Amino acid sequence: MTDRRGFLKAAPLAAALASAPAVHAAQPALRWRLASSFPKALDALHAAAEQVAQQVSAATGGRFQIQVFAANEIVPPFGVLDAVREGTVECGHSASYYYIGKDPTFAFDCAMPFGLNSRQQNAWLVDGGGMALMRELFAGYNIVNFPCGNTGAQMGGWFRREIRSVADLKGLKMRIGGYAGQVVSRLGVVPQQIPGADVYPALEKGAIDAAEWVGPYDDLKLGFYKVAPYYYYPGWAEAGPQLSLYVNRQGFDALPAEYRQILESACAAAHVAMQARYDARNPAAMKKLIEGGAQLRMFPRDILLACQKEAFALYRETAAANPQFRKVFEPWNRFRSEQHLWTRIAENSVDAFVGRHPVE
Amino acid sequence: MTDRRGFLKAAPLAAALASAPAVHAAQPALRWRLASSFPKALDALHAAAEQVAQQVSAATGGRFQIQVFAANEIVPPFGVLDAVREGTVECGHSASYYYIGKDPTFAFDCAMPFGLNSRQQNAWLVDGGGMALMRELFAGYNIVNFPCGNTGAQMGGWFRREIRSVADLKGLKMRIGGYAGQVVSRLGVVPQQIPGADVYPALEKGAIDAAEWVGPYDDLKLGFYKVAPYYYYPGWAEAGPQLSLYVNRQGFDALPAEYRQILESACAAAHVAMQARYDARNPAAMKKLIEGGAQLRMFPRDILLACQKEAFALYRETAAANPQFRKVFEPWNRFRSEQHLWTRIAENSVDAFVGRHPVE
Repeated sequence: MTDRRGFLKAAPLAAALASAPAVHAAQPALRWRLASSFPKALDALHAAAEQVAQQVSAATGGRFQIQVFAANEIVPPFGVLDAVREGTVECGHSASYYYIGKDPTFAFDCAMPFGLNSRQQNAWLVDGGGMALMRELFAGYNIVNFPCGNTGAQMGGWFRREIRSVADLKGLKMRIGGYAGQVVSRLGVVPQQIPGADVYPALEKGAIDAAEWVGPYDDLKLGFYKVAPYYYYPGWAEAGPQLSLYVNRQGFDALPAEYRQILESACAAAHVAMQARYDARNPAAMKKLIEGGAQLRMFPRDILLACQKEAFALYRETAAANPQFRKVFEPWNRFRSEQHLWTRIAENSVDAFVGRHPVE
Repeated sequence: MTDRRGFLKAAPLAAALASAPAVHAAQPALRWRLASSFPKALDALHAAAEQVAQQVSAATGGRFQIQVFAANEIVPPFGVLDAVREGTVECGHSASYYYIGKDPTFAFDCAMPFGLNSRQQNAWLVDGGGMALMRELFAGYNIVNFPCGNTGAQMGGWFRREIRSVADLKGLKMRIGGYAGQVVSRLGVVPQQIPGADVYPALEKGAIDAAEWVGPYDDLKLGFYKVAPYYYYPGWAEAGPQLSLYVNRQGFDALPAEYRQILESACAAAHVAMQARYDARNPAAMKKLIEGGAQLRMFPRDILLACQKEAFALYRETAAANPQFRKVFEPWNRFRSEQHLWTRIAENSVDAFVGRHPVE
């Protein structure tokens, strides 16, 4: 190898560093707690927080440690935002649409029904003006937010019987949360809030008729296909739900600049990895679900049209009543329309062709 | 704010650090050079290397500096791999399919015609076994590789006249590189290798009939629509072309473990950001192209089918002759088939619905 510059200069310094552990003391030793909204059993979701902790530790020689606590170990799943806001923990990993009760504007940080897919969400945040708007929202909650994972488009849920038209939604008891629950309630669905562990027995007994969960990889674990075999797609309610890392503002500001950058970059790595894990693992899980008896169905077009119409009617009503929401909705909605025009051309057409024409 | 733990502990240490600049000397001061394959004018491509340099500097308090050189400032665009391999520069940013002349296996690290889209490429590398295969390939070239950007699905190129069937490809002189050039040459196209700056005059004079470039954001700058107005999609040759950061093996091994992690995380952040920039900027550029007279056309299905068939025939021939290629192709091809089955269900169906049903 021709070592023209740099490497030989670096090597002795690295060796010197290795033999002088005392220098580590020069950087602040920190030990943070991270509260996750997710149980360890949802391993692809939970792994993002673990990955951030691992990379931050590796990038600081173990001086900045983040200990990850699963849902309910410190606070309940929906308590993460308040815990970070109040400094009960220095940081948290959550889905921002859990907090639409505080302000529906939080949904833009995660998933809006018929909103952005995961790439469009990244585009909006990184280069479409979205991050400034989201930072402003979270600043009001004493939090600095970082994108930290995405599941990609989810499935539409498990149904005990087939859904053939909008009329079939009337009176349907469905476990479906957040904004999507509000959308379908306008079409007669009775949304139910049920913890994950209770969904299976509720479906089995017929206490509910349907349940939205995540996608094949996570859904397989819970066995819904055994009691509600109709597996509908697409998950229009969550076409690209993003997870975020929340950092308490005072905690973030007290970090050395190096640690702030290290934390941000580690979130980006976890952001890529979560989507990659879901994409890599969903196909095999879907195969197992179908072998187990799941009946794949696409939502009829009239249902999709009705849901989209109600979603946007709801957004406009919310925007009229909530200036914070309106300030985000208007530019987001323009961005969304332009994105879908473009996505349809190059990206979707090649995927659609390849999907329809498998190589022999 | 209830500061239950951590922050107050952190703050005095951070303050102490700020008042003791001498501690910085404990970490090795490094100055690396990065050779990019891209000119500054392709700013969305070029920005990834700049972002890596910026984040690495910020994460190390300026102790690890990477100076970015655009194409031809140190080595020509296609000389980056050799420059990193030989240690002329410590690292480089390039598109691996530039090196299929050395080994066609390099195409898997960037783009295979009718291969993976950008999310599928991430899935393959992060969680589908792809990274181990690519690391093995690059190890033979004294390089450690990191994904560092993706453009998303490109466009199919600019044509002086409409292309209605496979017969229209016979004798067509087209600027198209790499593997895609080999694919279309099997259908009678005469692939041309022409530097970017010479493409416009060649199209204008009719020295060539067509040219593949990138997508709306980059294509707009070069004005091809004025001389070859038919703008074909999809860019089947590059459905998710990935860029990579190459690091000289000895240089990487000599880095402190902290710097290795910092470099890896910074690449992930740049990886997200490049795709986001292209996605955010392509729609407005496409609008300007169409206003300028570009005529949008989708490749006829018989052309797509013929190209896909020839692409896979070429892969199988290459695999039969090249054990390195075969070792990657076989698992990649299984992964690809499963991915496209899944992508078609949740992801494509929601995008397709929204694309076809704009909100009034």
